[in-house]
Amino acid sequence: MRKIFLDNNSTTALDPRVLQAVVEELQAPPANPSSTHWFGMRAKERLRKAREECAAFFQVPPEEILFTSSGTESINLMLRGLSRKGHLVTTEIEHAAVEETVRGLEKEGMSVTWLSVGSFGAPLPESIEAALRADTQAIVLSLAGGETGVRIDLEAIAALAEKKKIPLLLDGVAYIGREKFSLFPAMQAIAVSGHKFHAPKGVGILVHRKDFPIAPLLTGGGQEYRLRSGTENLPGIVGMARALQILGEKQEEIRQKILHLRLHFEKELTRALPDLLINGEGPRISNTSNIAFSGVDGETLLIQLDLAGIAASHGSACSSGALEPSRILLRMGLERKRCRSSVRFSFARTNTKEEVDRSLEIIVRLVKDLR
Amino acid sequence: MRKIFLDNNSTTALDPRVLQAVVEELQAPPANPSSTHWFGMRAKERLRKAREECAAFFQVPPEEILFTSSGTESINLMLRGLSRKGHLVTTEIEHAAVEETVRGLEKEGMSVTWLSVGSFGAPLPESIEAALRADTQAIVLSLAGGETGVRIDLEAIAALAEKKKIPLLLDGVAYIGREKFSLFPAMQAIAVSGHKFHAPKGVGILVHRKDFPIAPLLTGGGQEYRLRSGTENLPGIVGMARALQILGEKQEEIRQKILHLRLHFEKELTRALPDLLINGEGPRISNTSNIAFSGVDGETLLIQLDLAGIAASHGSACSSGALEPSRILLRMGLERKRCRSSVRFSFARTNTKEEVDRSLEIIVRLVKDLR
Repeated sequence: MRKIFLDNNSTTALDPRVLQAVVEELQAPPANPSSTHWFGMRAKERLRKAREECAAFFQVPPEEILFTSSGTESINLMLRGLSRKGHLVTTEIEHAAVEETVRGLEKEGMSVTWLSVGSFGAPLPESIEAALRADTQAIVLSLAGGETGVRIDLEAIAALAEKKKIPLLLDGVAYIGREKFSLFPAMQAIAVSGHKFHAPKGVGILVHRKDFPIAPLLTGGGQEYRLRSGTENLPGIVGMARALQILGEKQEEIRQKILHLRLHFEKELTRALPDLLINGEGPRISNTSNIAFSGVDGETLLIQLDLAGIAASHGSACSSGALEPSRILLRMGLERKRCRSSVRFSFARTNTKEEVDRSLEIIVRLVKDLR
Repeated sequence: MRKIFLDNNSTTALDPRVLQAVVEELQAPPANPSSTHWFGMRAKERLRKAREECAAFFQVPPEEILFTSSGTESINLMLRGLSRKGHLVTTEIEHAAVEETVRGLEKEGMSVTWLSVGSFGAPLPESIEAALRADTQAIVLSLAGGETGVRIDLEAIAALAEKKKIPLLLDGVAYIGREKFSLFPAMQAIAVSGHKFHAPKGVGILVHRKDFPIAPLLTGGGQEYRLRSGTENLPGIVGMARALQILGEKQEEIRQKILHLRLHFEKELTRALPDLLINGEGPRISNTSNIAFSGVDGETLLIQLDLAGIAASHGSACSSGALEPSRILLRMGLERKRCRSSVRFSFARTNTKEEVDRSLEIIVRLVKDLR
């Protein structure tokens, strides 16, 4: 039985073209980009090229691309340089990497407004505006929530941040690879993770605009413009650059493909199970359906799905070991019972219509059995 | 012309068996070890197995293996949890990752003794003992210096640390893969880097004994026993575990092979150029020769060697972009002229006797020409 992976917000399959780029670099002569001999120069040139490819995708100069080891590291780097004396606006529904890190800053003295987002699933521009203070030093948001897929109204929020001259710091981990990326002037930092868009694990980017201060987390040899010491993960970086190149060439086409799969999934599922509820009322990115099946225990459904060869989840993989309902759904004010009956399906361009159809059949059967 | 890589202290070629393990994992189904479905369980099991393989090499329980993104991250993690109120003993000749990080701690209030090591090249147990105070919280040393290869007297220093009940925190980056690893009770943390022993870049380990406190640098999903958040770089980890397995099976054989190459190199070079001087008088690890060619400008020799297809360096790659003589050699009290005329050759098990012989011929000719 061929298994079906509908948990693409936790990680994605490596693209074969990315694999080829990674393997090519893994097999290259010994490569430390800091060395001055031929071997080092080749590595340095490859790093430069990869940085340019990533910079082109994000429409920034190459020196504003900072390579890290993960989305989590990018997020920590984006946040830990902020002053502990100022104020910060974020929401109650951020990924653990943002939430835990901001809680740490809060303990060190930072003043934080944790916005509620309600069942809509994303903060409204007016509630952000209302939370701003004279000492607000940053607005920290995810471009889209990984659990529901609800996206922020980026255009309006970026305009607000620009007008108020407050840096907008973004967790782009769940967004890149699902929606077209656009750069707005207020966006001072964007954290992304390679393995969420078919690049390898172990590599991420912090896009940081030149006026935004970064405090290094790792000190040493002074790599990455003295902002992130440690020998560069060149095979991972080369792979991520290739993945962004592939994505950049057809962002809209990829989005459309994923969106069609998801809309087909939701339409057919709703037809078979008319009482299902979709969590997150706001506009969503292309790939995520977080669905409440009333009268069904989500955990049991997930286990049954797993036995039937279908991988879904009840939220962020980071906390999916816990048997608790998703803290994000709870904080959106949804009833505990509804949260308990919810399952997240997240699609990718590697999924096929056949997979979706087979999944639909199995999900409908299992939900009916469990009721 | 086949190029010869004699700069294996900067990085090493990937072992083909390691490549195979990495590629296998890169091609595996989507893998986030935190996910609870079949895909996640497979990844989690692979991670567990890799951790056990690494633990076996270092003779510690699996939960004392912490996977990081580099030697630099391991060193930062090992040091940044120390109290700023206590005292620390280290040396003037540590790698930038130790030196810069300790300087940061010093600025935050920590009291630090920077030991001189002189032309010997490593701190003597008696000078460490003399530096200890009632509030000394750690002794921070490299098992071997990457620039000269001089190793510490581990047995004596570990005994001293144990007697005084002071944790010994070790930078093992230049040591692992060149000498047999032995664990002593005082060793509370050991930082290592995969790409220095034929594993990929982008992955490292901090071995940390259970009583040694670690303050997380990256907060978020709580991976790695809540000590290092971020989705695990599974292909890199699997590759590093394989590299340690290969190494563990024949540490002595590998050491002997490298040592023979290096001794042959030094014997023949001394025969042809009797006035050369080896930097670092103390006992060295198997693979490093840091040599002063009097009357020759080291930088010019390096460039000529590079043109002739031989990669060597004048010290740590991290600072080798600079045209300054090695700060390590200067701090060993060697004359500036001698430092300027010095070149580091570092061997690996991937080098051959034929490569060494061809290098000898070229080096001797170039040195004679330059004089």
